[in-house]
Amino acid sequence: MPEKGYLMTPGPTPIPPEVEAAMAQPIAYHRGPEFQALLGRVLPRLKEVFRTESEVALLTASGSAAMESAVANLCSPGDRVLVVSAGYFGERWAQIAGRYGCDVVHLRYAWGDLPDAGDVAARLAETGGARVVYCTQGETSTGVVADVKAIAERADAAGALCVVDAVSCLGAVPLESDVWGIDVVVSGSQKALMTPPGLAFASVSPAALAAARSATSPRFYLDWERTLTSQAERRTPFTPAVSLVRGLDAALDLLLADGLEAAWERSRRLGRACRAGVRAMGLELFSPDDDSSAVVTAVRVPPGLDGVAIVRSMRERSGVTAAGGQGELKGKIVRIGHIGYVDLGDVTAALAALERAVAEAGGAVEGGVAVERARAAHAEAVGV
Amino acid sequence: MPEKGYLMTPGPTPIPPEVEAAMAQPIAYHRGPEFQALLGRVLPRLKEVFRTESEVALLTASGSAAMESAVANLCSPGDRVLVVSAGYFGERWAQIAGRYGCDVVHLRYAWGDLPDAGDVAARLAETGGARVVYCTQGETSTGVVADVKAIAERADAAGALCVVDAVSCLGAVPLESDVWGIDVVVSGSQKALMTPPGLAFASVSPAALAAARSATSPRFYLDWERTLTSQAERRTPFTPAVSLVRGLDAALDLLLADGLEAAWERSRRLGRACRAGVRAMGLELFSPDDDSSAVVTAVRVPPGLDGVAIVRSMRERSGVTAAGGQGELKGKIVRIGHIGYVDLGDVTAALAALERAVAEAGGAVEGGVAVERARAAHAEAVGV
Repeated sequence: MPEKGYLMTPGPTPIPPEVEAAMAQPIAYHRGPEFQALLGRVLPRLKEVFRTESEVALLTASGSAAMESAVANLCSPGDRVLVVSAGYFGERWAQIAGRYGCDVVHLRYAWGDLPDAGDVAARLAETGGARVVYCTQGETSTGVVADVKAIAERADAAGALCVVDAVSCLGAVPLESDVWGIDVVVSGSQKALMTPPGLAFASVSPAALAAARSATSPRFYLDWERTLTSQAERRTPFTPAVSLVRGLDAALDLLLADGLEAAWERSRRLGRACRAGVRAMGLELFSPDDDSSAVVTAVRVPPGLDGVAIVRSMRERSGVTAAGGQGELKGKIVRIGHIGYVDLGDVTAALAALERAVAEAGGAVEGGVAVERARAAHAEAVGV
Repeated sequence: MPEKGYLMTPGPTPIPPEVEAAMAQPIAYHRGPEFQALLGRVLPRLKEVFRTESEVALLTASGSAAMESAVANLCSPGDRVLVVSAGYFGERWAQIAGRYGCDVVHLRYAWGDLPDAGDVAARLAETGGARVVYCTQGETSTGVVADVKAIAERADAAGALCVVDAVSCLGAVPLESDVWGIDVVVSGSQKALMTPPGLAFASVSPAALAAARSATSPRFYLDWERTLTSQAERRTPFTPAVSLVRGLDAALDLLLADGLEAAWERSRRLGRACRAGVRAMGLELFSPDDDSSAVVTAVRVPPGLDGVAIVRSMRERSGVTAAGGQGELKGKIVRIGHIGYVDLGDVTAALAALERAVAEAGGAVEGGVAVERARAAHAEAVGV
């Protein structure tokens, strides 16, 4: 019998049984009344999760395609845009905008740094403004969650649209699209939304939709206007991933059952538990040691040890799938996700696996205390 | 208890239990060894289904995105391309190429016509050639299957790349990408490949890949080179629809179990059965009454009746979901798909539902003979 297995990456995340059951329903014809009713349930609740009155475009694609949609629909070649990056996914904004021929002003922080809204304002002032500011809420590669509210304020003050990558944050960390004045939020199904990968989303403010009308970059499959026109009739312009939309419908039931704030608190508490456990075993945190770290906890690999081997050992010896470092952090950190359908038992399983892997690799680690400290921190955090 | 329901559209199609079971497996981390092994099984067998030695790019998207990829990767603004269309999906090629600023020469046939390779050659000669010829194998909106072998020959003779939309045909109708000299074949998961919608494919010949290197249209998510570079290491560049890839793995087992030719013959026999039934009840076929019509049978709605109401009645009174006409054929035809996980019992259920719907709408229809004739035609076709 194979190991049970714990999927503890910051995406994709495990699927609740209610979502599995929904996806096992027979395929619905995407142009029939059943699917129309399904979209009629899903789209308004997506808006609740995005905290927006704007429409949310639903795409059959990965989150990166939703990111691309926010370049293809908003920009024409030569448009100046400001990209704020502090890790792998922030840099992806610069890659995409570069591909579309934008004049990319890149406010590039070191991986793991916290972007500063004052820098954003200064860079916008220096360069004479930008059409769009692209930034990342949860930098999944480092665990840092940026203050996108402050960035959006500075973008707005400079007359720029603000686009936020919330792929790993949506449903896990507070995000108030409309109140914070964010024009476009992009996300995906496979993180805190507890659905398999394959659906991506972009909320589109009226200002963003107006900008799209004048943007000349070519797009067809990712065209917002085409998508939103169909969605107004509870249809999709292209054959959607019907089974995943069924799953999302069930996942939204779960996510919103106790209110979105309860989901945010849940991730925050799991983050506290995870950090307490890591500290207790004497390892160093790479992601910030505060409540902003609610998506993923990044742990520094002790000097002399190989992070790739630690991640492999966690999987092979304990059945726990964690994520290693990406890009320049490869081998240097281990990332434990705690978003979506994950609970305290999963976090403690990941901590125990990490402890065992580090110890077996010869690293200095305080044994036998991490799980207990994690449980205590979680209990303390109740009702916070 | 709800009606059982028969999904008889030309996509999405019903899902075999083996595929359902595979998709219910826990989510695999897309950067872990399990998913790598999964891709290692899927990619070579996709090549078998495409009948090509070229690589097949796997995209998490609908088939239309794979179509777009064949414009974005092959063309620069101003490039002359020839679009051969005879229905809704053929015209989609012209729309996409137009969006990308191509100089579109449109060889446009009436919906339901069979494109002629001689016309393709003539148009290419008149216009001084083209960079790419875009055509459609199975025009799902009309049921017509074009002779793409002949079109590819003429494209090749004129020095143009040939791109074929085989979304509804792949796995249902003979297609020999390499032998016929087709550079790019695009398809999707939700038709004869018996997997839910959400995966799309594009086979990319060496000549197409070389053309992609000089094409300047912007693309990121749909970039072939990025995708194929990752696939060479059995990875995907973006988070893939993991559960759908698991499903596809199981579906390929089923599809290839008796060889691809057996799958082609299966669809051909079901097409014969369906046409025999339609003729027997005295209705007129819109799609050709020959073995090319193996994907979908299009039936003319008798004069004075409303096709939209017939389709609704089939669904509401008999639990059979068929497709109506698209675009200019709306209300004028009923389309019964017979690709994927569909058998003779399903086809006869659809015929009985059609007979009942037409009769109840007051149409002239010969009652009680269609199912029997369909069964007889199917039996006769065994071993053809």
